[in-house]
Amino acid sequence: MGKEIERKFLVKDNSWRAQDAGKRYRQGYLSTVKERTVRVRTVGDKAYLTIKGITVGASRPEYEYEIPVADANEMLDQLCERPLIEKTRYRIQHDGLVWEIDEFKGENRGLITAEVELKDEHQFVALPAWVGEEVTGDPRYFNANLVAKPFTKW
Amino acid sequence: MGKEIERKFLVKDNSWRAQDAGKRYRQGYLSTVKERTVRVRTVGDKAYLTIKGITVGASRPEYEYEIPVADANEMLDQLCERPLIEKTRYRIQHDGLVWEIDEFKGENRGLITAEVELKDEHQFVALPAWVGEEVTGDPRYFNANLVAKPFTKW
Repeated sequence: MGKEIERKFLVKDNSWRAQDAGKRYRQGYLSTVKERTVRVRTVGDKAYLTIKGITVGASRPEYEYEIPVADANEMLDQLCERPLIEKTRYRIQHDGLVWEIDEFKGENRGLITAEVELKDEHQFVALPAWVGEEVTGDPRYFNANLVAKPFTKW
Repeated sequence: MGKEIERKFLVKDNSWRAQDAGKRYRQGYLSTVKERTVRVRTVGDKAYLTIKGITVGASRPEYEYEIPVADANEMLDQLCERPLIEKTRYRIQHDGLVWEIDEFKGENRGLITAEVELKDEHQFVALPAWVGEEVTGDPRYFNANLVAKPFTKW
């Protein structure tokens, strides 16, 4: 098992945009139940099946397996809950950490979040100037919850 | 994608028992929603993650990936819905086809089913003498449904 420890923030300006061209992510869920989410994701010519357990503090059990892109596209098109989550992910370096900025499309357009993965829950994080309100642990921002309650319907 | 085409029957006597020693299966579900079931299964020293779509006729889309047994055991112990499904599977040859007989344990004890996988839905099947009532398509017998409604509670 991997353990995912991360903090999530809203993004308050566009000053980070010049630093990365971004990659398109397309993902859907076979389960959005919080105790056991199952995600299918394509990123370019790669695809992954990812299982996550429940978040305790900022930490969450995670299992990820690479799968054939053709399988992932079939599952996204035919099996996954609707709507799919579509977003562009930008990776930005700041003070020795990598930030992942997700700019959502479709029914979640307008939402931009920034996540940073940590080694432990108490690690110091130097916040970039473009980082806004912290939303770590706010279930509305879990991607699995953006399926049933997309940002444009909040 | 694979396509699973199979017929399922109850088993009416023990005349098949001498033919195979059987293997222990332990499995649980990350989703039991019929449109998208997600199963974690261990068989001896192997483990699999299997996604199935909805059954149309006797046919069902299926995606299966081998995963590390340690991951599977963690997911079975910590993430999957309760109860787990535990059974011994026996493989019996009859008239050129392989029958899989599942003898359930735990909360599904007393249930014994026999499945045969077919190349197409209209293939002729010579039924062994120990085969009883056909239950193909009866949702009570889907393993995913034996979690919420185990056989001992019917």
